Amino acid sequence: MSKVIFEKLLILGVGLIGGSLAMAAKQAGAVGEVRGWGRRQSSLDEALALGVIEQAETDLERALEGVDCVVIATPTQFAAQLMVDVVQRVPASVVVTDVASVKGNIAAALTKQFGQVPANVVLGHPIAGSEQSGVAAASADLFVGQRVILAAQEQTAPAALQAIESLWRATGADLHAMSAEFHDQVLGMTSHLPHLLAYALVAYLSDQPSSSDIFALTGGGFRDFTRIAGSDPRMWREISVANDKALLEAISGFEKQLAELKKNITDSNGPALEALFAQAKAARDQHMG
Amino acid sequence: MSKVIFEKLLILGVGLIGGSLAMAAKQAGAVGEVRGWGRRQSSLDEALALGVIEQAETDLERALEGVDCVVIATPTQFAAQLMVDVVQRVPASVVVTDVASVKGNIAAALTKQFGQVPANVVLGHPIAGSEQSGVAAASADLFVGQRVILAAQEQTAPAALQAIESLWRATGADLHAMSAEFHDQVLGMTSHLPHLLAYALVAYLSDQPSSSDIFALTGGGFRDFTRIAGSDPRMWREISVANDKALLEAISGFEKQLAELKKNITDSNGPALEALFAQAKAARDQHMG
Repeated sequence: MSKVIFEKLLILGVGLIGGSLAMAAKQAGAVGEVRGWGRRQSSLDEALALGVIEQAETDLERALEGVDCVVIATPTQFAAQLMVDVVQRVPASVVVTDVASVKGNIAAALTKQFGQVPANVVLGHPIAGSEQSGVAAASADLFVGQRVILAAQEQTAPAALQAIESLWRATGADLHAMSAEFHDQVLGMTSHLPHLLAYALVAYLSDQPSSSDIFALTGGGFRDFTRIAGSDPRMWREISVANDKALLEAISGFEKQLAELKKNITDSNGPALEALFAQAKAARDQHMG
Repeated sequence: MSKVIFEKLLILGVGLIGGSLAMAAKQAGAVGEVRGWGRRQSSLDEALALGVIEQAETDLERALEGVDCVVIATPTQFAAQLMVDVVQRVPASVVVTDVASVKGNIAAALTKQFGQVPANVVLGHPIAGSEQSGVAAASADLFVGQRVILAAQEQTAPAALQAIESLWRATGADLHAMSAEFHDQVLGMTSHLPHLLAYALVAYLSDQPSSSDIFALTGGGFRDFTRIAGSDPRMWREISVANDKALLEAISGFEKQLAELKKNITDSNGPALEALFAQAKAARDQHMG
């Protein structure tokens, strides 16, 4: 049985991720009371009815009163500004963390406001499935065996970092530590870039004059490849803008690779094509076999 | 019960596709006898032992004796030359077809040799799963509900086309008619391009200094997106070379789409990004929902 890490946990944005974290932490005995904050009372009422939170508040000032941990779990586009707003309003003893898909823009907003990422802030990102959304899909098991990245800084208070680590461990998550910059580079390459490529491919096909005939001839490989193009356009717009720098670098790197393939096709250079395909297959088999 | 369409069917290359076609046609009563041809006696012995074929022959001249239909089911790189060799050797009463992934290069090889695609040739392409290979994986059910494209020409003999249509219908396949050129454009966009993109992405990541850390942080979306990068490098080398023209066009079209995304990210143009993502999501939901 875990001991209580936070007496009063506040979740800003009680959706799939925030709600699941609240449920998992509560079930593990890692938190005392859970309060939820959101813009819409109806969403909070749903979270209350589901037992995901015990208190609800739509006013941020009142929501922050007396809590010892704040988790920012709103959509990406609100995370950076909300992080600044929260840090300005709470004492340094309150640990503030988040679950947003991009870390660099939040670190930058904090640095702009406070000169650095404050010691009581621990930036985080649980890499959990995003096929569903909303508090109704929340589950205490969502993070079991899932990766959670924590991007602590040199100045991060060890106690704050340890508390957030303990909170996530209580959910069954698998923790990874890295810098905000490396996080954004890696996620840019492994998640954001593939989403853009899938969106771009489907958009390209849908622009063709006979697109219905074309889609009718797609198979299982295409279905798997483009599954992520069914993701929420608003969310991916915000991630693309928030992680613009790393994402543009990843696109450029990918474009170079594609240009080389194009050249080898133009030159009918079979051996070079096969070598590149074999390199990719070997890497995939090794790392994801 | 189907009536016999061909008294003696010859399969050149008795692997997954050729073997499955033989089994399905035999089971449906659509063919009398099935003969297999291949370069290696051991493969033919396996096909004989499995009951996929009833006769085996490694000599092409002898294999062609007395057959009324020839199906070229070898790997893509051998299909065009073998098609020419076969057509030169059989009377015009013998129907010749194939199952290769690219059609234009075979049509071009025939046109170069004979002035046009001969009337007894029906170019075909069953779009069936390629995760497995080899005759041991062959099954009479492989084509049930799967799409088979037949690219007949103006000069194709109606009787030859009808016979090949009947042969595929006997396997339970869903037939689509189109030109060889349109086939190659569509498959270039829906199959060959996605394979190249998946290979390019995995190759790009595997070129990074910390590629092990990067792959360790990939999730289910990445796994689905890159599944086709586990495909056979030799086969995709040959498809890329055989369909070079249409594939280069598809890459160029995709590159333009990607460049637009890049510009919108550079400009932090959220609305334009969201519009493109939404267009792609809507197309995918509509056609593959």
